[in-house]
Amino acid sequence: MKAYILSVGDELTLGQTVDTNSAWLSQQLASIGCWICGHMTVPDDRAAIASAISEASRRCDVLLISGGLGPTKDDLTHQALADAMGVGLEMNEKWLAQLEEFFRIRRRPMVAANRVQAMLPIGCRMIENSCGTACGMHARVGDCDVYVMPGVPKEMFAMFTRDVLPQLRERANGAVILSRTLHTFGLGESNVAELLGDLMKRGRNPSVGTTVSGGIVSLRINARFPSLAEAQEKIAETEEACRQKLGDLIFGADGVTLPEALAPMLKENGITVATAESCTGGLLAGMFTDIPGSSSYFLQGWVTYSNESKVNLLGVNPQTIETHGAVSEPVVREMAENARRRACVDVALAISGIAGPDGGTPEKPVGTVCFALAHAGGVSARTIVHLGDRATVRDRSCKTALTMLRFHLLGKPLPF
Amino acid sequence: MKAYILSVGDELTLGQTVDTNSAWLSQQLASIGCWICGHMTVPDDRAAIASAISEASRRCDVLLISGGLGPTKDDLTHQALADAMGVGLEMNEKWLAQLEEFFRIRRRPMVAANRVQAMLPIGCRMIENSCGTACGMHARVGDCDVYVMPGVPKEMFAMFTRDVLPQLRERANGAVILSRTLHTFGLGESNVAELLGDLMKRGRNPSVGTTVSGGIVSLRINARFPSLAEAQEKIAETEEACRQKLGDLIFGADGVTLPEALAPMLKENGITVATAESCTGGLLAGMFTDIPGSSSYFLQGWVTYSNESKVNLLGVNPQTIETHGAVSEPVVREMAENARRRACVDVALAISGIAGPDGGTPEKPVGTVCFALAHAGGVSARTIVHLGDRATVRDRSCKTALTMLRFHLLGKPLPF
Repeated sequence: MKAYILSVGDELTLGQTVDTNSAWLSQQLASIGCWICGHMTVPDDRAAIASAISEASRRCDVLLISGGLGPTKDDLTHQALADAMGVGLEMNEKWLAQLEEFFRIRRRPMVAANRVQAMLPIGCRMIENSCGTACGMHARVGDCDVYVMPGVPKEMFAMFTRDVLPQLRERANGAVILSRTLHTFGLGESNVAELLGDLMKRGRNPSVGTTVSGGIVSLRINARFPSLAEAQEKIAETEEACRQKLGDLIFGADGVTLPEALAPMLKENGITVATAESCTGGLLAGMFTDIPGSSSYFLQGWVTYSNESKVNLLGVNPQTIETHGAVSEPVVREMAENARRRACVDVALAISGIAGPDGGTPEKPVGTVCFALAHAGGVSARTIVHLGDRATVRDRSCKTALTMLRFHLLGKPLPF
Repeated sequence: MKAYILSVGDELTLGQTVDTNSAWLSQQLASIGCWICGHMTVPDDRAAIASAISEASRRCDVLLISGGLGPTKDDLTHQALADAMGVGLEMNEKWLAQLEEFFRIRRRPMVAANRVQAMLPIGCRMIENSCGTACGMHARVGDCDVYVMPGVPKEMFAMFTRDVLPQLRERANGAVILSRTLHTFGLGESNVAELLGDLMKRGRNPSVGTTVSGGIVSLRINARFPSLAEAQEKIAETEEACRQKLGDLIFGADGVTLPEALAPMLKENGITVATAESCTGGLLAGMFTDIPGSSSYFLQGWVTYSNESKVNLLGVNPQTIETHGAVSEPVVREMAENARRRACVDVALAISGIAGPDGGTPEKPVGTVCFALAHAGGVSARTIVHLGDRATVRDRSCKTALTMLRFHLLGKPLPF
């Protein structure tokens, strides 16, 4: 099965937005053994879109298109697809009804422009969009199956995964590429690579590579085998070998985030959590509460951004701040202990640091962050200097605190 | 002058690498008034590259290619360009000498594979690479100028800037494309488009288009004129026309975020802020404290995720929760008022809602979020039903609260 990917939008051809949809779609197609002939990007121009559809559809079995489905005048993919199919547009009553419902629920008026989003080429199948007003389309152009999805990545991901991928997977019955990703936090990429050793040798199948994103060093295992069973067996072997090398550094696999990895550990042991944050300003609480159902273990948080609030809200001794500074282990220890006591929780995490760009000193440079974890057995504290800009320091600090908690729950010392 | 951009590489078509070169090159071309017909990406396949070069060269005046110039067997752009030109390859003695020098300086042996990097299509001009072993190429294919550059972004940027851009700028004789982006929050894309009316008409110059990202509806104004002065004047006129239509809905331009737009309004008026969050779990405080220097106005925040913490930390009357539910305007009113009083701040924002995926009822579906803003003059509250998944509901809720505060500071009613 040969596939082609077409992205539509002036913001792409003008370079104002980097096209990430094509790469994501390519990964999905590659994972079911599909051969990707190429990507194409065209501006919001009806003739250019139509001609790209006609050309690409002659060269492949499946054409995936994203973009140009919005309600405005520069959204022209409906018309261009109709041109390429040699048909006109007609109102899709089913999607129109859903659009009307969408606006009714939101208590917003539905304007005429939105009706246009339900005008589809005659003979094409409507694909539902669970998170937006642009439905997708599935049509045949010559011998090619054309799927059109919204350009908004989240909507496109959802539509592709729910509707398009299952259809394509059924058609692709050949070699299988399986991937598995294992995530670590705490060590640098080169340290992880050193621990993995020969597993990362080029040409190995399954292959093992590392990527870094947001401080998370991930191992990507790719297995390419004639059958699914063989690919599954080999990928499991390689995963086991990686786990042997990295142990508890691996906190999760595939889409799992650090807070998601913590959720079952907290839930199953009935452990409750509170947070007390200074430089991370609520982001740590935000990460905990990202998880549906987190209310069963995350009870409350304090954002004590000013020194006064550390004293007034959390009862930190002003003398401790005066003597050691707000960014110090004695202060985070008090923050964590008091948060634990006041919130009546099993564990409390506290963070205070210098996120930058200002506020650094030679002794405590920007990026210096103190962490404390209060639990039934006492309080442990750490100071770590994170490199990077303000957003990076804040993000890595939250992940460090989550990792401290994770190793505490594992009953093991932090490995860094 | 019409241009086309071609990227070469399996890592791109397999989606393992996101193509950022095309966006960067597009921006460069747009800045000199070049019209970008499209982007294309092909795998490391000689026939596919050659056919892409032939096709693209018929459609444009300038074709920019990056990738496929390395020393390994899967680097095939030299041969493919020669195929498209209908010529053979010959050794470029000048680049060969520089390659030898390159390896001599680094005291590394030069392998046979590197010699291949100096084999260029007969009749093409060699473009020097100051930071790598892959030289570039400049050739004519039909009436099209073809420039081939390395795929490594750093090497490509350097070569394009030093050699290619000056040549193109000369040919483009001064035409300029300027862009300006204005951001709104609160209305849907179609509502914004309706307000803009004819400003969005196709073919208008400067053009006005809309894009949506994270609930922020942005207007992108692109002006294409012979001179910079004219482009600047026209873009300013169009910006003014957009502002006439949308007024205070526009919170900022170009890179500005909502919390960044609020920062000077708070700072200059010496207004202090606190937050009390339930379903957003710290994200609103996190948005405030994203901004360097936010400690001068953001003093503290509460994450009262459980009902108990609403009562214990913020003094919400348990009876209010019992009577109206935790997600209700009476509860957020108390949260905001008490947060304002306890934190001794000028304004306090409170959020309580059902972020989902569970917890919805027919009366209060998932996405129902209550907001309150307490200020010296009283408390105002709103209930909004956000659509989308948990992360979307939480993000939009924070932006709604920021927007409530923004309109309060402007002394105007919320426009939605």
